[in-house]
Amino acid sequence: MNYFSSNFKLGILGGGQLGKMLLNDTRKFDIYTCVLDPSNEAPCKIASNEFHLGDLMDYDAVYNFGKQVNVLTIEIENVNVDALETLEKEGVKVYPSSKTLRIIQNKATQKLFYVDNNLPTAPFSRFAYTSEIKEAINHGGLSLPFVWKCAQFGYDGTGVKIVKSIEDLEGLPNVECITETLVPFKNELAVIVARNPSGDIKTFPVVEMEFHPDANQVEYVICPARVSDAVAKKAVEVALNTSKAYNHVGLLAVEMFQTQNDDILINEVAPRPHNSGHQTIEASYTSQFEQHLRAILNLPLGRTNSKVGGVMVNLVGAEGCSGNVVYENIEAIMKLDGVTPHIYGKKQTRPFRKMGHVTIVNEDLNEARRIAEEVKKTIKVISE
Amino acid sequence: MNYFSSNFKLGILGGGQLGKMLLNDTRKFDIYTCVLDPSNEAPCKIASNEFHLGDLMDYDAVYNFGKQVNVLTIEIENVNVDALETLEKEGVKVYPSSKTLRIIQNKATQKLFYVDNNLPTAPFSRFAYTSEIKEAINHGGLSLPFVWKCAQFGYDGTGVKIVKSIEDLEGLPNVECITETLVPFKNELAVIVARNPSGDIKTFPVVEMEFHPDANQVEYVICPARVSDAVAKKAVEVALNTSKAYNHVGLLAVEMFQTQNDDILINEVAPRPHNSGHQTIEASYTSQFEQHLRAILNLPLGRTNSKVGGVMVNLVGAEGCSGNVVYENIEAIMKLDGVTPHIYGKKQTRPFRKMGHVTIVNEDLNEARRIAEEVKKTIKVISE
Repeated sequence: MNYFSSNFKLGILGGGQLGKMLLNDTRKFDIYTCVLDPSNEAPCKIASNEFHLGDLMDYDAVYNFGKQVNVLTIEIENVNVDALETLEKEGVKVYPSSKTLRIIQNKATQKLFYVDNNLPTAPFSRFAYTSEIKEAINHGGLSLPFVWKCAQFGYDGTGVKIVKSIEDLEGLPNVECITETLVPFKNELAVIVARNPSGDIKTFPVVEMEFHPDANQVEYVICPARVSDAVAKKAVEVALNTSKAYNHVGLLAVEMFQTQNDDILINEVAPRPHNSGHQTIEASYTSQFEQHLRAILNLPLGRTNSKVGGVMVNLVGAEGCSGNVVYENIEAIMKLDGVTPHIYGKKQTRPFRKMGHVTIVNEDLNEARRIAEEVKKTIKVISE
Repeated sequence: MNYFSSNFKLGILGGGQLGKMLLNDTRKFDIYTCVLDPSNEAPCKIASNEFHLGDLMDYDAVYNFGKQVNVLTIEIENVNVDALETLEKEGVKVYPSSKTLRIIQNKATQKLFYVDNNLPTAPFSRFAYTSEIKEAINHGGLSLPFVWKCAQFGYDGTGVKIVKSIEDLEGLPNVECITETLVPFKNELAVIVARNPSGDIKTFPVVEMEFHPDANQVEYVICPARVSDAVAKKAVEVALNTSKAYNHVGLLAVEMFQTQNDDILINEVAPRPHNSGHQTIEASYTSQFEQHLRAILNLPLGRTNSKVGGVMVNLVGAEGCSGNVVYENIEAIMKLDGVTPHIYGKKQTRPFRKMGHVTIVNEDLNEARRIAEEVKKTIKVISE
């Protein structure tokens, strides 16, 4: 298949910021790209060759879109997997596969998959409904505290709650869910693994998600992670074993906990470009987006090491601000060394909505981390 | 002016590959962008917010387009400057200015400008018509050999000829032209200077254009240039003085000769992103395209030093091939370390047409240069 010809069409399910950044690389390689998204204001509307409006969970919308392309990928997991399965049977190359997505879409299935494949993950229990949890606690089958996770459709922090007392269960949706032992961890780490259909595999360096000391929120993604070589090696091994078990094509971002004993436990995975890899655009020889494209098109994978140290700060909507977005002090942060803002192009801000990110690169990682703090203190995503 | 709002519009005259690469950065910053180009197949048609069809040399086309934007820039010099002058008077910010463009558009005017500003350049003579040259030789006012240059509209090697004998003059168009003393040079160097309206100035590192030993054609752009610190310093000084004389806003790419005595002579300039800066996308902290955008929007200029060594190879159409383009062996070069092809998206190839470029980055510049040679030997731009 000649990807670099106008007879080839790549389809992307989802037209958000990840798709938008992927389109930079389809444009760089001049690959014809079609995007399906439910919103007429999707960031991908520009820069795709064809933009199609449609519901990603709708069988017909996904099937009809998929029939028009040669290779189909995703930028969001919540898509109609039955349609993908039919498309695969009918010869469309779907990466990640319907099989991979089915396991990942449901957190209970995903956790069982790790257990079945002897992959390290925190102990958990599965419930058909949240209402069954109280009974399990009362019968001694479950002890507090734990992490409650909605099994399906949780995304970016929604659908996850730390439950310390029975009262914390109140207000949670009564849905299929899992409870996970609360693991006291030293670090949250991530490794992005790329694999193409020929079976070539490359891993990006281990990154560290640095949390705010008070708020339980990732503040910085730091590449490379400030951990020992032994811990980094173990994290890469776990990520590679996870990749092997899924047998995925494209990227697999593996989020992990480094426990107090320096064990590595898988938290969850994403079979696509991921927030923990944004700094690769400026810091790595190959960006995660170019690498995803190389992988799904069965091109040779690019170098994954870093040119320089990288730190990423998410730009999320400020609390109390809703409406037309304003990036306050963006010019001030652009004065700082090695600072690149990425604005996703969403017109409306809402509290905690992901509106962009800022990458800080420097030959000295500590200096990048210092500048990142200044960036975080300075820029604000507010409304008009 | 809030550039990061939907009320702001940036206009670009020209929709070719330079505009296309600039659009990557307008998309990154979510800046609303309008492009004017005469071809419906222009690489900028995708990824601009608005694409307008029109002749860049036509007063009305340029004026009417310019009236719709807040800041107007170019990706090609051959545009209607009278329209730009009117737009400036009417409050549109035009960078580079009509004044800068008027000097640069005509090679005779450009050379006189260097003389007037005590900037070093090779001696030259000016002729209203090529036919007058023979007379000058006969009267002893001009001696062979020399370089003949068409004064206007020469681009990418057209409009330039080395004249060694009177017979070489035959077949040249009878137009306004200059003749320049043939300078035996050690190296052709270039420095890109960025300047914003506030007067902030930054220079990218000196690059070297390595020529094919037989064919008189640039084969590689190498960053940084393999010259002594003293020569590099002198080249930067000449570039800065040139920038100061033009008082331009945006980028100014200054092409220079390093003579046998290590003098620096200005060859010519381009007030925009330039072929000698493509490697900045992968090699520099700030790409030339992002820097041009920062400069014309009066944003702080970014760091211009390199993360790693960079070499750039142009992808031009192979001799004897015309028609639908095929990039032969593109997958083979993507196997090599640190290799990124940029495909401009032109559907038709012609001999020597610029169809793309390949950047090779490496922590070791010599290794990048070695891989670049392999790239050049391997990939071919042919027709179906």
